[in-house]
This record gives sequence, structure tokens and C-alpha cells, in this order.
Amino acid sequence: MDPIARWHEYMRTDDPALLDALLADDVMFQSPAVHTPQVGKAVAFKYLRAAAQVLGEGGFRYLDEWRAEQSAVLEFECVVDGLQVNGVDIVHWNERGLITRFKVMIRPMKALHAVVPRMSAALGMTPAPAQPS
Amino acid sequence: MDPIARWHEYMRTDDPALLDALLADDVMFQSPAVHTPQVGKAVAFKYLRAAAQVLGEGGFRYLDEWRAEQSAVLEFECVVDGLQVNGVDIVHWNERGLITRFKVMIRPMKALHAVVPRMSAALGMTPAPAQPS
Repeated sequence: MDPIARWHEYMRTDDPALLDALLADDVMFQSPAVHTPQVGKAVAFKYLRAAAQVLGEGGFRYLDEWRAEQSAVLEFECVVDGLQVNGVDIVHWNERGLITRFKVMIRPMKALHAVVPRMSAALGMTPAPAQPS
Repeated sequence: MDPIARWHEYMRTDDPALLDALLADDVMFQSPAVHTPQVGKAVAFKYLRAAAQVLGEGGFRYLDEWRAEQSAVLEFECVVDGLQVNGVDIVHWNERGLITRFKVMIRPMKALHAVVPRMSAALGMTPAPAQPS
């Protein structure tokens, strides 16, 4: 099955087993917050579960989709802490249909500032200051 | 000519006349910083020129491109104030090939914090505080 169709099925069901089956061992997660990627299936799984938890609270829905051969961009919107969040998932996969890169961008700035500490909390980390020096 | 090919030609030449010829009268610009769109050709033109000025300083290049029928996503990278900037342009056009919506998202957060006051300055506005309450 098409990796994006499988991704949508995971988002619909919120079934961690579907996410696990969809990620390559060397998958790289790139957050909207920090430059440094999170590499490897265990850590990417953890970040994607936390993102789904934080963003999935308020009316999450995909708006639009663009395709290339082994990658796609999915635009979404949702509400976090009463703020409208608009973002994209940029998803790349390998010839076996397993996701190798998953990048998230979010706008506007207020929404990013709302999401970042919520993500840290969902990951069990001490929330970073919203504006590191 | 394909609107995206025309966009790339504009970015290569930095010729304002090419940008002017590419925008629909009712074009909407949506910045990475604020939720509220900038509507109309004059204001969108001004924002796109400012964005090209700020982002065009340091090694701007497009990395990837995804297509739908009358829209596309272009991923870019550049360097602003020594910080790596990664972003997307989400471009929609009408049946006449004129751009009707142009949305920008930027990651990571530090890059967005660097770009926003630079954009305000390029637009001749007083830089807004990076983290409005």
C-alpha cells in the first residue's frame, strides 16, 4: 500500500503498531523547533507519537497534499492552546515503502511557541525556554 | 510558461517586473510569522520582495519540489545571520497561471526568530518583539 495511505490510516486509528510498521530503521525526524535531526526508529517513533498527541487534540485535519516519486508534502491545520496551527509534514520513503525522513514545519510563530513546550512535556523533557539565546 | 518555471526565473534574475507579471490581483501572501494573510497584489509584492532580500543573502537554493495540478511546494535552504534556515514556499495559481496564494513556513525556531525582525526591517516596519504576548 502507498506509504501516505498507510500514514493516513495510522493517523485515523492512532494505532502505534501501524506507525512502527511504517518507519525505516534509520528514519530521521526533523522537528519544527530545532535544526538537529532525531535519528533512528526508536527516537523518531517517540517524537512522532508526541507530535500526534500534541497536535491531535484540537480538530487536526489534512488540507492538501503534493506528491513526488518517493516523497510527499501534507499540509495540516489544528488548534493548540486556542491558537490556530498550520503546518506541513514532508515525508520521504524508500523503495520498500518505509519512511526514511519525516520533517515538520509550523506557522505562525505564536503557534510554534505554543507547540514547542507542549512537545517537550509530551516527550517527558523539561520544557526548553521558548526563545533560547 | 509554467508558473513555477516563471517563479524560478524571477528568483534567478531578481527582476521585479517578472514578479509583477506573475501575481494575480487578489493574491494572498501568508508569512511564517503571523496568522493574518496579506491580501492584494501591491502588499504581496512588497512582502515577497522583502522575503527575497532577507533570504537571498546567504546561499539561497531550492532543494526539492512537489506538484499538484494548480499548486506546488518548493523546499529551500539559506543562511541568515549565520543560522541555517530551512523552509517551504506553498504556491497556488489560477487557470491563467497567475499566483493566487503564496505561503511560507520556516524552521527551525532560531531561524524564524532571526528572519522575522529582518523581514520587519526590510518592510520598513518597527521590528515586532519576537515573542508577543
